[in-house]
Amino acid sequence: MKKTLLLLFSFITVGAVAQSTDESAIKQIFDKELVDGKSYPWLEYLTTRVGSRLTGSPGAAAGVEWSRHELENVADSVWLQPVMVPHWLRGQQEVGRILNTKKSGPIDVNVCALGNSVGTGPGGVTGVILEVKNFDDLKKLGEKNIKGKIIFFNRPMDPTKVDAFEAYGGAVDQRAFGASEAAKFGAVGVVVRSMGLNQEDYPHTGALRYTPNVPKIPAIAISTKHAERLSKLIKEEKEVQFYFETHCEMLPDAPSFNVIGEIKGYEYPDEIIVVGGHLDSWDLAQGAHDDGAGCVQAMEVLRLFKIMGIKPKRTIRAVMFMNEENGLRGGLEYAKQAELKKEKHIAAIESDRGGFAPRGFSMSATEAVKTKVKSWKPLLEPYGLTDFNQESGGADIGPLAPQGVAVFEYLPDSQRYFDYHHTPEDTIDKVSKRELELGAASMTALVYLIDKYGF
Amino acid sequence: MKKTLLLLFSFITVGAVAQSTDESAIKQIFDKELVDGKSYPWLEYLTTRVGSRLTGSPGAAAGVEWSRHELENVADSVWLQPVMVPHWLRGQQEVGRILNTKKSGPIDVNVCALGNSVGTGPGGVTGVILEVKNFDDLKKLGEKNIKGKIIFFNRPMDPTKVDAFEAYGGAVDQRAFGASEAAKFGAVGVVVRSMGLNQEDYPHTGALRYTPNVPKIPAIAISTKHAERLSKLIKEEKEVQFYFETHCEMLPDAPSFNVIGEIKGYEYPDEIIVVGGHLDSWDLAQGAHDDGAGCVQAMEVLRLFKIMGIKPKRTIRAVMFMNEENGLRGGLEYAKQAELKKEKHIAAIESDRGGFAPRGFSMSATEAVKTKVKSWKPLLEPYGLTDFNQESGGADIGPLAPQGVAVFEYLPDSQRYFDYHHTPEDTIDKVSKRELELGAASMTALVYLIDKYGF
Repeated sequence: MKKTLLLLFSFITVGAVAQSTDESAIKQIFDKELVDGKSYPWLEYLTTRVGSRLTGSPGAAAGVEWSRHELENVADSVWLQPVMVPHWLRGQQEVGRILNTKKSGPIDVNVCALGNSVGTGPGGVTGVILEVKNFDDLKKLGEKNIKGKIIFFNRPMDPTKVDAFEAYGGAVDQRAFGASEAAKFGAVGVVVRSMGLNQEDYPHTGALRYTPNVPKIPAIAISTKHAERLSKLIKEEKEVQFYFETHCEMLPDAPSFNVIGEIKGYEYPDEIIVVGGHLDSWDLAQGAHDDGAGCVQAMEVLRLFKIMGIKPKRTIRAVMFMNEENGLRGGLEYAKQAELKKEKHIAAIESDRGGFAPRGFSMSATEAVKTKVKSWKPLLEPYGLTDFNQESGGADIGPLAPQGVAVFEYLPDSQRYFDYHHTPEDTIDKVSKRELELGAASMTALVYLIDKYGF
Repeated sequence: MKKTLLLLFSFITVGAVAQSTDESAIKQIFDKELVDGKSYPWLEYLTTRVGSRLTGSPGAAAGVEWSRHELENVADSVWLQPVMVPHWLRGQQEVGRILNTKKSGPIDVNVCALGNSVGTGPGGVTGVILEVKNFDDLKKLGEKNIKGKIIFFNRPMDPTKVDAFEAYGGAVDQRAFGASEAAKFGAVGVVVRSMGLNQEDYPHTGALRYTPNVPKIPAIAISTKHAERLSKLIKEEKEVQFYFETHCEMLPDAPSFNVIGEIKGYEYPDEIIVVGGHLDSWDLAQGAHDDGAGCVQAMEVLRLFKIMGIKPKRTIRAVMFMNEENGLRGGLEYAKQAELKKEKHIAAIESDRGGFAPRGFSMSATEAVKTKVKSWKPLLEPYGLTDFNQESGGADIGPLAPQGVAVFEYLPDSQRYFDYHHTPEDTIDKVSKRELELGAASMTALVYLIDKYGF
């Protein structure tokens, strides 16, 4: 009975959309998603049945197959875009240990290898550990103090940044470049405070990038709680010896895919609007907020267009990018192919900040485009989309920007993202169904307007 | 070392605030709370050590004592305002059972008595159960169909309302007045679909109000999942027999208190600005979001003024109201005493929508006051406070409005509130420390501006 009514509602919706005002069309998009959304059951499947999806892993391959299959039900055409990806393996459980303390025996601490790191192998790395806050501290200490030691980067994310991504941006250089920066001065290993704003027991993984022609030294993340403990001990004791052991390794590049589905435009089929998220996740995580949420939201844009019978003027393309986490190969390959094929992308929208409640969209575009999008604010504000002033563009779609494509990033509320980011805590139960749905509808509404009015 | 630095920072802050612009003063308030806030540890204590705080219970008394004690560290003076409160007891665990079905034997369903309800006693209530969506359905069925039956109110909260409180407002009449409305037609008991937007296993309690001179019949809430199941069975079977048993009772009114702490204003000590939350919670809940969050945020307003050395021109008063949940006696008593003592309240701000990320403030005030507050938007928007267009005023401070007091309600994001509301799920682990702190700082910022500029 209820299903029949919903079906009836769908048919009414179909007819109505064409003539409706933008306001009512957008309301219908949100209503449809909130009543009959598929983003949450999709995410439930992706996180609990497919599971973690590190680039090159069987989980990533399963994610490709799953999203290809699901997109076939909602897109006119679906294809896989080949891309070679890094293939990093964590190996067996890491060990982190404070060896000598005056007050007690050895203390095990919660650590994990950073993505792309070389492993220590079975012998581990042992050395005196020195705490620093930034790369300037390394210069001050110099090679004479650092050589043969382990460097502990312990600058916290700044809690006074109201946008948690700003706090992340201010601290993540330690994780991304700390190993090579410390290696330049002869360090033998690196321990990085986890990128999180809370006092937590679990470490946050994440990628590092080795600088060419600098020795590759192993690097681990330590939980924020244990970073505090280690820091306290270093202050109390004269010299603290630290040991860690990791078994990660980088294998040869492996074949993988971006997964692409599209609905062809009826008036300007050559003008493409991309919506996307990244399919890969860290091996430790289900990848619910990062970035299963973005994937199912992008898929939902196509599905809503289809089930609501909205025929787009332009081509709408959903892309599940591969390898955002430790290489960005998917995003780079997508942009490269777009250029080679002389495809005309007019806009790209990415969701990679979690499945939280809407706050706005960032833009990296011409002033004319920005002005046009801001003119739509009254249509979007009733759904919590009030922030259109940020200038970011999203990792995977960023490579399209140099081709003159207007790039947008969906901005959900940022407060809880780094509680889960790159950890085993990034699970489906941390996702609010309604918040996820509001994000999917927000992206669909923006695509609806861009498609209707063009740039 | 770190503590010393923080302390130093505090002293710098103190001196700076007096001369600083509003923008920097508000930034200092947020910074202080995000670095050095006490709202979260306070809430942790209140929820896990004091626990549930139903009006008239030992837990409520412990809450009074705890908040009195804590306020003494941050206020110039603290006192208890006596108020007689209803004393409702749930008694032993409720039973809800679908008795006859064609396909299976009896099915137990998850239910709980509604607050203020009479109990069925040991014999329970048995009857044919009829599903309705609203009070009009009762009229259509009439006494001939309803007499001796149990009425099942099953109109869901409307998921298309983006503001979850609007969805709640559209459904809660069933819980609040359903028992008396059904009793007018001779019903012997009432089952109400829980006020929640998700499919959940646990029922949501909440208050009912009996209409004078209508027989009091017992009422229970049923979990949304089991409401769906019951509804399906009623559609499939010709006649469904339902049984429920509750042991709740209303005892004589009991003595209790509003807890009040204030910092005296140095220039206009007779002008009072109230900030408040309600101390009581449901017996089934820790009352983390409802409304431990509002209490600790109100306490934090005083604490931030004190530790930052901000001397208010006007008197700032934090009030922990008693009995919002099932009587509003505290709010009514506070307003009554304010009128008797001819106190001049210029503004009252309540937080009772959970400890979620800031969205704005609602206002019920003169146009002049609203215009003034809206002129502060540029100062508050950087913290997510963008919505100043709603017209509500808060349950506990509402009774002050007829005295000409401008009343404001803190509006956090609403999406997750009804996942936990009035259930055992309303626990501290559902509260994000940063979201709670941003709310406390939001309230402090508004008080800062009202105090500085007056109305």
